[in-house]
Amino acid sequence: MGELSPLFAPERIAVVGATDREGSVGRAIMENLLDAFVGEVVPVNPGREEVFGLPALDSVADSEADLAVVVVPPTVAVDVVREAGEAGITNVVVITAGFGETGTEGATREQELTEVAEAYDIDLVGPNSLGIMSTPVGMNASFGPENATSGRMSFMSQSGAFITAVLDWANDQGIGFKDIVSLGNKAVLDESDFVREWGDDEETDVVIGYLEGIDDGQAFIQTAREVTQETPIVLVKSGRTDAGAQAASSHTGTIAGSDQAYEAGLEQAGVIRAESVQELFDAARVLESQPLPETDGVAVITNAGGPGVMSTDSIGDSRLSMASFADETLEAFSETLPAEGNIYNPVDVVGDADNERFRDALDVALADENVGSAMVLACPTAVLDYGELAEDTVAMQAKHDKPVAACFMGGARVKPAAETLSEAGIPNYFDPARAVAGLDALSRFRDISEREYREPTTFDVDRERAREILSSVEGRTDTRLGVEAMGLLDAYGIPTPDGDIVDAPADALEVAERIDGDVVMKIVSPDILHKSDIGGVKVGVPNEEVYDAYEDLVSRARNYQPDATIIGVQVQEMVDLDSGVETIVGMNRDPQFGPLLLFGLGGIFVETLEDTTFRVAPVSEPEAEAMTREIDAAPLLRGARGRDPADVEGVVETIQRLSQLVTDFPAILELDINPLVATPDGVEAVDVRLTVDPDEL
Amino acid sequence: MGELSPLFAPERIAVVGATDREGSVGRAIMENLLDAFVGEVVPVNPGREEVFGLPALDSVADSEADLAVVVVPPTVAVDVVREAGEAGITNVVVITAGFGETGTEGATREQELTEVAEAYDIDLVGPNSLGIMSTPVGMNASFGPENATSGRMSFMSQSGAFITAVLDWANDQGIGFKDIVSLGNKAVLDESDFVREWGDDEETDVVIGYLEGIDDGQAFIQTAREVTQETPIVLVKSGRTDAGAQAASSHTGTIAGSDQAYEAGLEQAGVIRAESVQELFDAARVLESQPLPETDGVAVITNAGGPGVMSTDSIGDSRLSMASFADETLEAFSETLPAEGNIYNPVDVVGDADNERFRDALDVALADENVGSAMVLACPTAVLDYGELAEDTVAMQAKHDKPVAACFMGGARVKPAAETLSEAGIPNYFDPARAVAGLDALSRFRDISEREYREPTTFDVDRERAREILSSVEGRTDTRLGVEAMGLLDAYGIPTPDGDIVDAPADALEVAERIDGDVVMKIVSPDILHKSDIGGVKVGVPNEEVYDAYEDLVSRARNYQPDATIIGVQVQEMVDLDSGVETIVGMNRDPQFGPLLLFGLGGIFVETLEDTTFRVAPVSEPEAEAMTREIDAAPLLRGARGRDPADVEGVVETIQRLSQLVTDFPAILELDINPLVATPDGVEAVDVRLTVDPDEL
Repeated sequence: MGELSPLFAPERIAVVGATDREGSVGRAIMENLLDAFVGEVVPVNPGREEVFGLPALDSVADSEADLAVVVVPPTVAVDVVREAGEAGITNVVVITAGFGETGTEGATREQELTEVAEAYDIDLVGPNSLGIMSTPVGMNASFGPENATSGRMSFMSQSGAFITAVLDWANDQGIGFKDIVSLGNKAVLDESDFVREWGDDEETDVVIGYLEGIDDGQAFIQTAREVTQETPIVLVKSGRTDAGAQAASSHTGTIAGSDQAYEAGLEQAGVIRAESVQELFDAARVLESQPLPETDGVAVITNAGGPGVMSTDSIGDSRLSMASFADETLEAFSETLPAEGNIYNPVDVVGDADNERFRDALDVALADENVGSAMVLACPTAVLDYGELAEDTVAMQAKHDKPVAACFMGGARVKPAAETLSEAGIPNYFDPARAVAGLDALSRFRDISEREYREPTTFDVDRERAREILSSVEGRTDTRLGVEAMGLLDAYGIPTPDGDIVDAPADALEVAERIDGDVVMKIVSPDILHKSDIGGVKVGVPNEEVYDAYEDLVSRARNYQPDATIIGVQVQEMVDLDSGVETIVGMNRDPQFGPLLLFGLGGIFVETLEDTTFRVAPVSEPEAEAMTREIDAAPLLRGARGRDPADVEGVVETIQRLSQLVTDFPAILELDINPLVATPDGVEAVDVRLTVDPDEL
Repeated sequence: MGELSPLFAPERIAVVGATDREGSVGRAIMENLLDAFVGEVVPVNPGREEVFGLPALDSVADSEADLAVVVVPPTVAVDVVREAGEAGITNVVVITAGFGETGTEGATREQELTEVAEAYDIDLVGPNSLGIMSTPVGMNASFGPENATSGRMSFMSQSGAFITAVLDWANDQGIGFKDIVSLGNKAVLDESDFVREWGDDEETDVVIGYLEGIDDGQAFIQTAREVTQETPIVLVKSGRTDAGAQAASSHTGTIAGSDQAYEAGLEQAGVIRAESVQELFDAARVLESQPLPETDGVAVITNAGGPGVMSTDSIGDSRLSMASFADETLEAFSETLPAEGNIYNPVDVVGDADNERFRDALDVALADENVGSAMVLACPTAVLDYGELAEDTVAMQAKHDKPVAACFMGGARVKPAAETLSEAGIPNYFDPARAVAGLDALSRFRDISEREYREPTTFDVDRERAREILSSVEGRTDTRLGVEAMGLLDAYGIPTPDGDIVDAPADALEVAERIDGDVVMKIVSPDILHKSDIGGVKVGVPNEEVYDAYEDLVSRARNYQPDATIIGVQVQEMVDLDSGVETIVGMNRDPQFGPLLLFGLGGIFVETLEDTTFRVAPVSEPEAEAMTREIDAAPLLRGARGRDPADVEGVVETIQRLSQLVTDFPAILELDINPLVATPDGVEAVDVRLTVDPDEL
């Protein structure tokens, strides 16, 4: 039982704005509630004596309800909610539109609504919501045209229309729900609240949702990663593409964060992200009803070679693999299958297989401990009865308690069998790819539920020195920093090449003499972003040329931009790029999720190959380590092509130290270390750029 | 009318092995033929007087049939086909199994069958086939349990079971066919023959198929690229993944070529490759019935914001784009849509939209010339009639003659509307992603049908010199060549760095003195593959060190392997890798498609990033040029990150010259130029490795 359970199991519901006027929302809600709600319904409407034969009250204050559904005009809605609060009603659904979605006046009204709800500690859904439903109490407190049937999925949606569409479709498919919430404008309760609620709800086995945005990314990650230790969450988050994000933003009026942040954040939260409606339900249906596979090996049992190959392709596309059978299994198949069959996976029981042969093969395969799940893939033949095959499939699934996917191919002749399967929680598909998608989701959720989240490491750093360096932008209009901020990295223990910034040629020579070998010299100026383009970088400078090089760099900068602020020249140890891999470690700040860390292949390949991966900070050590494995170029770090492996631990630690830095200082808006060179001997941050917001210091 | 049209429109069919024995294949075929075939059916069975009341003949020779369907046991099948041939019957379908798919004896029998068919010029389907169907003449010459309904798709399948499954499903979905062929073992007629036939057939609008292998890739490409100038071909080629390829190979007994070859070959053939059954039919259904879009801009008309965003995401994932409306269109929307709607794309006609508002918006959008196609995306509401919306959608599609996709969301309430749409060739989907997939296929086919295929360029080359170099492997057990074969590239006009292979230190110095600047020196030995690993490469050698370097390289090679054959030392001009991009140009020989060309990012990134693209040789100039655009790193070649653009034309020419080389010499089994360094000044092949088959010289 979650904290919000009173919202979904009220005993007495007041409908404020109830009416029996044809075509009105107030009438639709009354009709829906009167249809099946097990408790009492109290219409509130000062303009009417009675509604649907029930005496109408003048005010919600007199209703003695434990849930108020508000359908009055926007101008009075806030007052109604206040009255409800004063009367001790702490569960309110505001159907009324005309709030944040309609401009400044509406936004002010929504702000008031939030304040009232907070003042009276009201759990408020909406405004601009289709309503809520909960099947155990027969409650349809919405103005949608359909009732939900009973089930163990709970569903939230930022689009009310999508709920009506899904319900019509789901009723047709035999898919049921426990609770449904139309989130509306999320003035008070949002996705994190319902994730928490359904995580605590024993009647909910899967949480599904359609979201256009997540309000507080960090809170969502915290909540969802706890919930997903037990309960799967499958979400469509739209606005994945640039075009989609633009459409979402114009539809909801919110500034969308980057999809990279959503992708990373949802992954860290343990959410299974669906890219389409079909993916959402294909995953949710099996997660609702089937056990999790212990291993990723799938046995395919089929009476048709061709579709067997197709399903093998689909398994090859997924995180699953074709199971290798144990010797006993192969022996059993050798004894029972005809010579023209195939005892290896996919198991071909041959076109003349009857139900017994099919069932026995499935039984044998599921008994194999290398088999985590199975797929029954059948083509119609004269000797195979689909109805009996469906019953056998259900029985074998139950006997072995392993997930089974069904792909009984065909049309009309499949229907009764598909119903038998569906009732037992085994959806049937014509396309093997979709059956595999279900098994894939089960495997993904098994891994998610077994995750161990670790606390981020806290390193011993020099926070004061970092603050001082960041403060150097105070009072400046240009708040970007470059190599002159290398000390920031040093303060947080990120290795940088030996060297210093100097403002006189003699000092440059002194630094160079301290460094072993030739040096790199770079002009340091906030006004010169692309140093290389103006000849502002000199590589491999021997000590005897340092003096002249200094003069030359400064005069090039002056020629390029006479009024440029020249801080000086950086004299730096040479880093051997040939023996190392150039990587990039960076951060930008996302409006919803906060600091978003980037790791990838650096140097000239950053933009073109976009071989990068993202995480919301702060990250723990295993998360940072995972980032170094996720990029395509990962093998290069680990010594591909006969090279010595680079110091991956150093990279992992750098990611974590950067994570700590950007978490400690919200003033850092974006920061790139490019390249961070990883050699077998260690890592070094060769260059840095960042932008600071002095108001946050 | 194609050459094979007599096969699909016979007047008199002899069924050899006809019987009325319950459960037999011979009976099933008789039943299917007698059900609807418009011509005559003649049973042939020397053991019976009559079959299904028809007098049975003793021999096919007496049948006067123009098509023979053979269901006799394998031991007599070849004789039956010979008799048919002698009697002048040139169309034969061999249902009988027990040929190539069953081992050596069967393979010999299949070889005989092929020879007989060739001797009598018989167009033979099978053996091991489910049969063939053709709806215009009501012919179901198969033992499948379902008749096809009439339509304009023709369908071939290497799996008979898949045909029975598809038919059951298609009949349920209202999908019809013109011809259907179960290809069987393809002893005579194969996929290329049917592609040609249906390309010439005016009653076929789309060719679809399920293939596990293509026998002659080059012939298929030639045929299909002609056909696809007019008629779309959509295929599932299974065995895409490693696991799938293994399953396909064990199922069909053929050695599968690489999927890279299939991917490249199908692309060059103009075939739309579907990855799943769902993709196959989603594409085929719209290609059968809808016009091609003139532009890729899609207008989405919806009464629900959320699903509008989802469809925008799907369009973002595809090759299509959201159309930008012309000013007149925006003005028209401003006048007719309510203020809370959206006049930009996706067009939100708002939840209270009635049929008129929906239809008018669709009409306005389709009239816009920036709109190539439209999607009608509807959620159920009280004021919208789905039946009427379906009729309006069909009418507007016809009025504007532009493709329209339908996504009427919901279940039971959608069904009658979906039927109306389907009858007009507009499939309806619950998931916007699938509706978009249909529009995407139309756009792809438009581009395919507009392709202009060019002949490959023939360069003036020194073929004799190339042959001489390749012949150097004759009599050797190790037929690999390395840098000693650089002359091969030179003979075909591919630029190589200045230099030579020498076998004495004094000669090395002579070569080095001829070259400007320092040189690279490499040991040349067929026994030392990884020269760098043993210190067999020296970079940046000044003239004064060449003599000692020679001695050192040879002694390192001797130390590494005392009995190594040492050809000498290569002395080569230094190539400036820093100013260039290292690419790879290569080739291997595919069993089905022949020479497969590779282009990609070279150097250390080849294996890790696999940023590569493939084409079947020979390639024309536009095809070679396309290869240089397809890799992720393409922008680097064209001067990303402030670099000067590399000599892309040189890369394009190198690809074509290599294409000519490997086409001229089937003896070259594989060849890699890695790196081919592309700088602003030109390209240079720095290293080469190849393997030669001397028997093919």
